[in-house]
Amino acid sequence: MSDILFLATGLGSGLLSILIALYIYRMVMNADEGTDKMKEVSKLIEDGAHSFIRVQYRILGIFTIILAILIAIVFVDFGIPIAISYVLGSIASMIAGYIGLVVATKANRRTAAAAASGGLNPAFRVAFRAGSVMGLMIAGIALVGLTSLYWFWNVILPDSVFVVYPREAELWEIVTGFSFGASTVALFAKAGGGIFTKTADLSADLVGKVEHHIPEDDPRNPAAIADAVGDNVGDVAGTGADIYDSNVAAILAAAILGAGIDLHFSPPVSFALLPLVLAGLGTIASILGVFLVRPKEDQDPGPILNRGTYITTILFAVFSVAIVLLLGLNIVIAISAIVGLFAGVFIGFTSDVFTSDRGLGGFKPVPKMVESADKSAANLILSGYAYGLLSVLPSVIGIAIAMVVSYFIGGTLGFNEWEGGIYCVAIAAVGLLSTNGMIMSSDAYGPIVDNARGVIEQAQAPQEAIWACDKLDASGNTAKAITKGFAIGASSISVLALFAAFIEATDTLNIPGVDGLLVVNLSHPSVLAGALMGAIVPVVFSAILILGVERNSERMIEEIRRQFDEEPGILEGTTKPDYEKCIGIATSGAIRELMPGTLIAIVVTIATGAILGLEALAGYLGGAVLSGLILALLMDNAGGAWDNTKKIIESPEYTKYEVGTDDWHRVHDISVTGDMVGDPFKDTAGPSINTLLVVISLTATLFLPVIAQLHLWFIGLF
Amino acid sequence: MSDILFLATGLGSGLLSILIALYIYRMVMNADEGTDKMKEVSKLIEDGAHSFIRVQYRILGIFTIILAILIAIVFVDFGIPIAISYVLGSIASMIAGYIGLVVATKANRRTAAAAASGGLNPAFRVAFRAGSVMGLMIAGIALVGLTSLYWFWNVILPDSVFVVYPREAELWEIVTGFSFGASTVALFAKAGGGIFTKTADLSADLVGKVEHHIPEDDPRNPAAIADAVGDNVGDVAGTGADIYDSNVAAILAAAILGAGIDLHFSPPVSFALLPLVLAGLGTIASILGVFLVRPKEDQDPGPILNRGTYITTILFAVFSVAIVLLLGLNIVIAISAIVGLFAGVFIGFTSDVFTSDRGLGGFKPVPKMVESADKSAANLILSGYAYGLLSVLPSVIGIAIAMVVSYFIGGTLGFNEWEGGIYCVAIAAVGLLSTNGMIMSSDAYGPIVDNARGVIEQAQAPQEAIWACDKLDASGNTAKAITKGFAIGASSISVLALFAAFIEATDTLNIPGVDGLLVVNLSHPSVLAGALMGAIVPVVFSAILILGVERNSERMIEEIRRQFDEEPGILEGTTKPDYEKCIGIATSGAIRELMPGTLIAIVVTIATGAILGLEALAGYLGGAVLSGLILALLMDNAGGAWDNTKKIIESPEYTKYEVGTDDWHRVHDISVTGDMVGDPFKDTAGPSINTLLVVISLTATLFLPVIAQLHLWFIGLF
Repeated sequence: MSDILFLATGLGSGLLSILIALYIYRMVMNADEGTDKMKEVSKLIEDGAHSFIRVQYRILGIFTIILAILIAIVFVDFGIPIAISYVLGSIASMIAGYIGLVVATKANRRTAAAAASGGLNPAFRVAFRAGSVMGLMIAGIALVGLTSLYWFWNVILPDSVFVVYPREAELWEIVTGFSFGASTVALFAKAGGGIFTKTADLSADLVGKVEHHIPEDDPRNPAAIADAVGDNVGDVAGTGADIYDSNVAAILAAAILGAGIDLHFSPPVSFALLPLVLAGLGTIASILGVFLVRPKEDQDPGPILNRGTYITTILFAVFSVAIVLLLGLNIVIAISAIVGLFAGVFIGFTSDVFTSDRGLGGFKPVPKMVESADKSAANLILSGYAYGLLSVLPSVIGIAIAMVVSYFIGGTLGFNEWEGGIYCVAIAAVGLLSTNGMIMSSDAYGPIVDNARGVIEQAQAPQEAIWACDKLDASGNTAKAITKGFAIGASSISVLALFAAFIEATDTLNIPGVDGLLVVNLSHPSVLAGALMGAIVPVVFSAILILGVERNSERMIEEIRRQFDEEPGILEGTTKPDYEKCIGIATSGAIRELMPGTLIAIVVTIATGAILGLEALAGYLGGAVLSGLILALLMDNAGGAWDNTKKIIESPEYTKYEVGTDDWHRVHDISVTGDMVGDPFKDTAGPSINTLLVVISLTATLFLPVIAQLHLWFIGLF
Repeated sequence: MSDILFLATGLGSGLLSILIALYIYRMVMNADEGTDKMKEVSKLIEDGAHSFIRVQYRILGIFTIILAILIAIVFVDFGIPIAISYVLGSIASMIAGYIGLVVATKANRRTAAAAASGGLNPAFRVAFRAGSVMGLMIAGIALVGLTSLYWFWNVILPDSVFVVYPREAELWEIVTGFSFGASTVALFAKAGGGIFTKTADLSADLVGKVEHHIPEDDPRNPAAIADAVGDNVGDVAGTGADIYDSNVAAILAAAILGAGIDLHFSPPVSFALLPLVLAGLGTIASILGVFLVRPKEDQDPGPILNRGTYITTILFAVFSVAIVLLLGLNIVIAISAIVGLFAGVFIGFTSDVFTSDRGLGGFKPVPKMVESADKSAANLILSGYAYGLLSVLPSVIGIAIAMVVSYFIGGTLGFNEWEGGIYCVAIAAVGLLSTNGMIMSSDAYGPIVDNARGVIEQAQAPQEAIWACDKLDASGNTAKAITKGFAIGASSISVLALFAAFIEATDTLNIPGVDGLLVVNLSHPSVLAGALMGAIVPVVFSAILILGVERNSERMIEEIRRQFDEEPGILEGTTKPDYEKCIGIATSGAIRELMPGTLIAIVVTIATGAILGLEALAGYLGGAVLSGLILALLMDNAGGAWDNTKKIIESPEYTKYEVGTDDWHRVHDISVTGDMVGDPFKDTAGPSINTLLVVISLTATLFLPVIAQLHLWFIGLF
């Protein structure tokens, strides 16, 4: 009985979240669309985003179908249910990305119009509502997808088909297909979007600003719309997909670990379904938080936004304690969820220390980097890189402490120490991600305001409207810094939970050759070799992405030059450039650069397990987490620090040289170099690693029965 | 009986190597010192090197004494023997570094004189002989130190004192002190030398070239001598110390693992002492190789140098097969040593692909980077960084394969699979390092020629002499590329062997709480937390070194400016600048920046074990290897690639823009930025990681009994 209640809570809160998102979407659509000029500019971005989606989803569709067929074939048992779950996971992820992109591109002109007619407050309302459509949508889709799939397969599959594996374990193995679909699509959205946006950015600047001296975002530039589309593609759809897939993976990992406890200890309630309840409560807390974000007339929106996040967090903490007590469970489960929340806040805070102009006390990395920029470009690059390295320290310690603490208290649950402990680590991940609806709402708001500002400028709206957008933008940046840290923390702890889920699955799925829980003995050379292999996956993937941006921008630069050469009317402003062409190049190029890396990651994961065995595969996952975490934090934070170094030099608070003097230009040029290096760091390679780690962890877990089979066949060769 | 023979072989070949080094030293000293002007310039460098040594060794002396006292106190058993071994290890390492520095700085004017009077061939002879003094000396000192210490303690300590630990295991634990001393000194030599040389380089260029427009190496620059000293300190003494300490550590690791086999299986000959024999044979092969490097009149010295290396390698392979057959041992031991040799060659080769102007087939990273430099500084930085990341792939795969193969064949030795397998992994490390005498001889030759060229130029010697030195320099660069890869491969496999030796020591030392071999289960959160902690150690250490160079050069720049301001005669060339002062700042600053990082590394290692336990400490070592290997390869190779990108643009083969045109200057300036970023990558942070990994591995192994005690005390608190 409690099972159905749990499922209903998950499904119900997910559906509620989606319905409210749709309701808010209608409110946003009813807002004034602004002047004709605003509509014109904004429509171009909207159409561009659709072009991107069309091309990307066509390729993704083919990819998904081929992979689904392969899955249906290679799995001896349940190939078709897994393939169906995988396809549904991909589709759900695509829908989430699509909705985010649509609402963001439709909301920018409406935000612009509200800023022009009503000022700060109405503009904030439109932008934040649009952001919350994305936030509540991804939270809702995750819940609805996971619960309804589990429920469906549970109802439809008779006990008689579960011959090889225990029912409970196999059901979650099937649902893993959903998470795998979500993550592969997220990888394309995040890394593909990252290549797309930096390709457009770099190419537009190089041909437009440097070669033809036309201003940034000038509509004569064939890449201008691609550039604006890129902001939405990378920041809204990409970040949304990243958090969405971490959330799905965290819930799934907790469910797999819970299923192990259910199987071995038959607790009073289902520990596999409990994470769905917690995630559902987090979503309800997010919905309440979203409705509480209502600034009073001319109030600074920044604190309001943060207050919304704080309230959501507190509400979730209260809800989780209440439900755990209500169910008569051990309070440590709720405490673990809260530990996860704290870890997320801590990582966000320390990332902010390394990337903001404030620093912490006397430790001020970014102001130090401003001084370095005065010396030479090399000094700025070196200090940014060194501070980026240093920024890894607090986050990793935070993650390690959260993991050890939740494991330690989970060990007191009364089950097997490992299973109880590791379940609580997974619950910490679920807790950290529980408020993702609210976090994403305040994050997606940033790029919408940013785009609105561009629309206002190009539509020559009044100065006050620009001023209002600037103010909104500033508070958006703080929210963004928090989200970046949140995303890294969320994916790291989720990946650690997935790592444990993989170990648990080797047991619950009765994998041949594994007796009890897998022992991943790092002192065994095959495990160490697996760890070495795993450690280089994020390294090579980052290299491919960065080189991909460079190669892709070469193609796009050629196209922009071709348009300028063949149609002199473009530069004169009499002929419209072919925006679509540039968007097409950025999109197909992004996917072309990304596809090999993604396939390699999946194939190498399976091959490592098949050749070196499951212990080595677990070592591989561990190695990937270690190096991935370091590279992601290094690149995200160094990139953010270089970006803010440039911003400080451009701001009035930089008083060392007067704006426009030779010295100022020298320092500014150097800071631009830093920012250009940082762009693919923080917007392409760094954040994509999060999703990559989830993808390879899920590959290992999903294909576990296949890999075990392949390994037996492989060692049989000798 | 065979024990004494084994020890005598090790000791004898070590002593022989030292005697021959001294004999060659006398030959070098007998060479003509050149013109008065040459002597004057060269003496300044020599005196500068002595200043450096004085300051550094004073601080190192204090450090060593304090640490020795601490060791004597904290070890319940054998504190004093360990402390004595540690002090001797430090002193031996200091002597090795001192001799290398002395011979290098004395040889440069003699090489210059030979080039001026006799041309290519005599100059080559002097330089190579000087290099081989260093090469044979470090190989000899390692062997003499290890064998005589073991022998001494074995003779002097009665059986009755070995109460807690088995005699064989404890003796090697005491000798570990020697290796620990070697490595801590090496870390100061390598990382301190790295900070020193880049501080001097950066400061001399900035104040001299940029602010006062005086040429590079101009004697009016107060930092000119520090800069020249830096080349010797970093490239000769630093690299020598790095290879020396890897060699000592590899032999020690193999001995510890062999001691385990001796204890558990009582094989016919001592497996603990066998590595000494192999290292001894490698040293004899090196001596022969050194004597075979004799170029014919006006022959290009590059191939001669490589031929010497090849012959040494083949000789060692033959020797090791012969001795293994002679002793009636399983041939797989010799094969493992050869596998190690191959791994070293492979890593050297692939590093060369990523850093040379040739590349491999159609894959040409450096020529691609030359194109990037034409676009923007950011493009060059990004492509160098991306190729640096990519360069990690082949080396890591090479290391993983060497490890798995030698483990696999070692498993057939007939002992316990793990002990036999892992012993052969350690033998692979010994094999890789066996030819270190020859490798180091051809490496040390490079900076000597480089310095000779500077002496010739400043002494206004004939053009043909410069030409001869240039030709010698070019062949030195190839040797250097090989050595870089060799050093990374050597330290990685040595560290893997040390990791295994740590595991073995937990067993052979009968550490309380460990039953049999330690199981390092990565799926246990405390091991994973340990791995996370370990992974950040090289990250933070790199950050400290890079920031240290920047901070240290700020101090030195101030001093140079002060001298120019207070003594106008300096710039006019009438007053001699205070070279000593700059050298002092570079030295003490380097040590000041380095000391915290070193102490933190040692303390964090001990603390991780004390708090989280020995399994977590093993995880910590594993995590450190993974991230350290990636960072070291990334920084070494990216730095090398940026360096060569600049060299190509400066060379006649770069034809895109004519030298001296605006475009050429633009591209060249960008390449200089890349090189400046790469300098601390490849000369400070990257190579220091090798030594850091050895230091923390040895810390764990040496302090194992203390850490186990502390951990018992710690968990007793709860």
